[in-house]
Amino acid sequence: MNRSMIRYLLGRVLRIEAILLLLPLLVSFIYQEPLGLWFIAVASGSFLLGMLLTIHKPESTVFYLKEGCVTCALSWIMLSLIGALPFYLAGEIPSFTDALFETISGFTTTGASILPDVEAMSHCMLFWRSFTHWIGGMGVLVFLLAVIPMSGGSNINLMRAESPGPSVGKLVPKIKSTARILYIIYIAMTLLEFLALIIARMNAFEAICTALGTAGTGGFGVKADSFAGYNAAEQWIVTIFMILFGVNFNAYYLILFGQLGRALKMEEVRTYFCVIIAAIAIIMFDTVNIYGSFFTALTHSSFQVASIITTTGFASADFDTWDVTSRIVLVILMFIGACAGSTGGGIKVSRFVIAAKTVVKEIGGYIHSKSIKKLTMDEKPVEHEVLRSVNVFFITYIFLFGLSTLLISIDGHDPVTIFTAVAATLNNIGPGLAAVGPTQNFSFFSILSKYVLMFDMLAGRLELFPMLMLFTPGVWKEFLHPTSKSTLFRKK
Amino acid sequence: MNRSMIRYLLGRVLRIEAILLLLPLLVSFIYQEPLGLWFIAVASGSFLLGMLLTIHKPESTVFYLKEGCVTCALSWIMLSLIGALPFYLAGEIPSFTDALFETISGFTTTGASILPDVEAMSHCMLFWRSFTHWIGGMGVLVFLLAVIPMSGGSNINLMRAESPGPSVGKLVPKIKSTARILYIIYIAMTLLEFLALIIARMNAFEAICTALGTAGTGGFGVKADSFAGYNAAEQWIVTIFMILFGVNFNAYYLILFGQLGRALKMEEVRTYFCVIIAAIAIIMFDTVNIYGSFFTALTHSSFQVASIITTTGFASADFDTWDVTSRIVLVILMFIGACAGSTGGGIKVSRFVIAAKTVVKEIGGYIHSKSIKKLTMDEKPVEHEVLRSVNVFFITYIFLFGLSTLLISIDGHDPVTIFTAVAATLNNIGPGLAAVGPTQNFSFFSILSKYVLMFDMLAGRLELFPMLMLFTPGVWKEFLHPTSKSTLFRKK
Repeated sequence: MNRSMIRYLLGRVLRIEAILLLLPLLVSFIYQEPLGLWFIAVASGSFLLGMLLTIHKPESTVFYLKEGCVTCALSWIMLSLIGALPFYLAGEIPSFTDALFETISGFTTTGASILPDVEAMSHCMLFWRSFTHWIGGMGVLVFLLAVIPMSGGSNINLMRAESPGPSVGKLVPKIKSTARILYIIYIAMTLLEFLALIIARMNAFEAICTALGTAGTGGFGVKADSFAGYNAAEQWIVTIFMILFGVNFNAYYLILFGQLGRALKMEEVRTYFCVIIAAIAIIMFDTVNIYGSFFTALTHSSFQVASIITTTGFASADFDTWDVTSRIVLVILMFIGACAGSTGGGIKVSRFVIAAKTVVKEIGGYIHSKSIKKLTMDEKPVEHEVLRSVNVFFITYIFLFGLSTLLISIDGHDPVTIFTAVAATLNNIGPGLAAVGPTQNFSFFSILSKYVLMFDMLAGRLELFPMLMLFTPGVWKEFLHPTSKSTLFRKK
Repeated sequence: MNRSMIRYLLGRVLRIEAILLLLPLLVSFIYQEPLGLWFIAVASGSFLLGMLLTIHKPESTVFYLKEGCVTCALSWIMLSLIGALPFYLAGEIPSFTDALFETISGFTTTGASILPDVEAMSHCMLFWRSFTHWIGGMGVLVFLLAVIPMSGGSNINLMRAESPGPSVGKLVPKIKSTARILYIIYIAMTLLEFLALIIARMNAFEAICTALGTAGTGGFGVKADSFAGYNAAEQWIVTIFMILFGVNFNAYYLILFGQLGRALKMEEVRTYFCVIIAAIAIIMFDTVNIYGSFFTALTHSSFQVASIITTTGFASADFDTWDVTSRIVLVILMFIGACAGSTGGGIKVSRFVIAAKTVVKEIGGYIHSKSIKKLTMDEKPVEHEVLRSVNVFFITYIFLFGLSTLLISIDGHDPVTIFTAVAATLNNIGPGLAAVGPTQNFSFFSILSKYVLMFDMLAGRLELFPMLMLFTPGVWKEFLHPTSKSTLFRKK
């Protein structure tokens, strides 16, 4: 295990976080909120610690997937620990566990809140809360790759550990350029949404927070009723941008470089839109009697479907009061999630597309002799390694889901609350149903449950394995005695 | 597709069912119930139809997995259609859908009932109901293989389609002998339980029905309160036999032939017992405050754990009133299910063992270079084909579960009812929670929901693919035009 490289990268992440913490400070100046000064304190501490960790350059830059995963998991935990400090020190979230929960929920773009009254928060804290979504959406390590000069060709392992989806698409041969292109698209689309909301006459602060929260598919709102109080135009803008941020960013890259045809042919994106349309149709049909008008039902069903499948978690209506079919459609969407290579969470559409093809192929195998046709996606054969990793992902997911449910159940809440609390955090959505419905919050859980849910949020965002590795004795043995068997790892 | 062979086998199944239908007739003589005469009518019809189908011997006995699956699915549907007739014709279940539901629930060893008052049924009908469990437990095609002379070495495909578990263990090289050994163990253990219950002073009729229901891991009781009214001795006997019938029958074969050591080393069986002990411990701890005494809590937790993990579905207590942790443990057990090669349902312990090993291997693969060690089970490497089939099973299961939940939700019941109704039928358990809890029944579902649940019961018992194949256009094309591409299938 290349410890010095891990240390160095963690230091760089801390230095970046220090800079990012200056943005909410700016907000506190605008609104003249003295508690914004805490951001200076935390930013300074983060910067100093970061400098300390980066004084010595790493001895070697050789970096494998295991180091990528460990760095990634540790970075996100560290980011959250530091990021929680302003909330805690300023006293706006009096319990550190709650502050950490809120921050992890922010960075992982979950949006599950422990705040009983979000409107009582100061502007700078609300901004920081929404800004964590934006940082977490595209990933801080991807940002790191975009801005710092890194030698060696093994940076892909850092990106692979942080990026969502069964396989990492390098848009261009150089990781640095890929990371930059991703961030440029990300920033441009966020600005576009901000402008659209301003044109729709939303106030600037709310428009910024909403744009940041939508871009990261996060879900923290600045209003107690999330999006119920906004008008239809604002709701539709958010709906459209939520859907857009759930699309595989490769599609935008293709469109940017004039390959619209190829973008439109991407199977994952097509399936994503088909699922969205089908879900909207079912829910609209199911809720038209509640809302009276066809258009209102369409607005709310579209908003909620977009919000849940992209794992954003904004709510324009209390969907916990909807008929059970609508609720079950939403729960199914929770698991499907957004496209791979988007900022959204969940299991990802591409994994389901591959899974569905596996089932069809299996049944075909019973009828005809096996393995005649290779499984294809976007007209290219799917590599065996990808297939295997998709299968393992599903199975690991099931185990983690079962274990989390069991641990949360100790609190003694009703089964729907327990099940959807785990679903909403592991898939990085935010609200669930019943006691964790869109008008509720997560503050009532026990300390144990909160830590389980924090783990689930991180595991969900980092696609399970980086977080699970932290609980593997083998990793720590390797970390503490890095020289042992080091030749074994050089091979790869 | 070898249509003549499928026709011939279906005919043989009908002839066997005709004979089996004479047993409840005998019961009706003992209790002097005139409506038992319906069994003569149905048996005669079944026999005549069977003779008609078996007049012509099949032209060829070449038989592949696809024919095995189709025969299996059609046999079970036909068995159930005929088996439902006595209930319907005698008027004890006035709706044919309900009679079919009850019969499918019987044959698939589910035990989910639509009867509002089971004690109002006549003895012969109650006996037939429990007897369907016993027939379905080991499988009628396995029985067919045990009794009729079949040429050709491809009978394994028939057994493979009906037997539970990721891989079919031939105990001895000859299928016929394997099938016979399985049935001998099955009959002997059923008799043993019957004798134990008689010694515990249960009345003979109840003892027979209980033994048949336990052996098949079915769950139909003859009392309105299932097993709540029996004494602790009777409950413990049933508990022990439920656990025994959930063990992989290969273990009994090994013990019979003096290889106790190898039987004790079977990883699946060990895991099965570990899971049972852990679940009993959690639930006992969780329910001791309800029952006051340690022993009563142990009795009820053991009974329910044994009943649910083996997918039997008897109840000695209304577990729907237990704390949520206990209920969630039971729901998790529903999915785990019994051992492969037992009469129990569910996903099967061996699939979970293999799945858990896959996850551990995956994490190991992140740390060390990949695929150093091959995955082993019982000290033998697990073949790639088995691994793949386990993965595909999980994924297919998820899709079927999601689709069923969505369809059932149209009825508009609460989410726990919907979720556990699907879990209880797809895993062949019987009762679920809330409105399908152990003191409730399934009669309130709509016709559509009942057919979805019937499909789930059959799919669960036959391990998904035989039933899914009936919905594949390719199978029907092949069935209607069997000559096309027939050379393709000869290869295998």
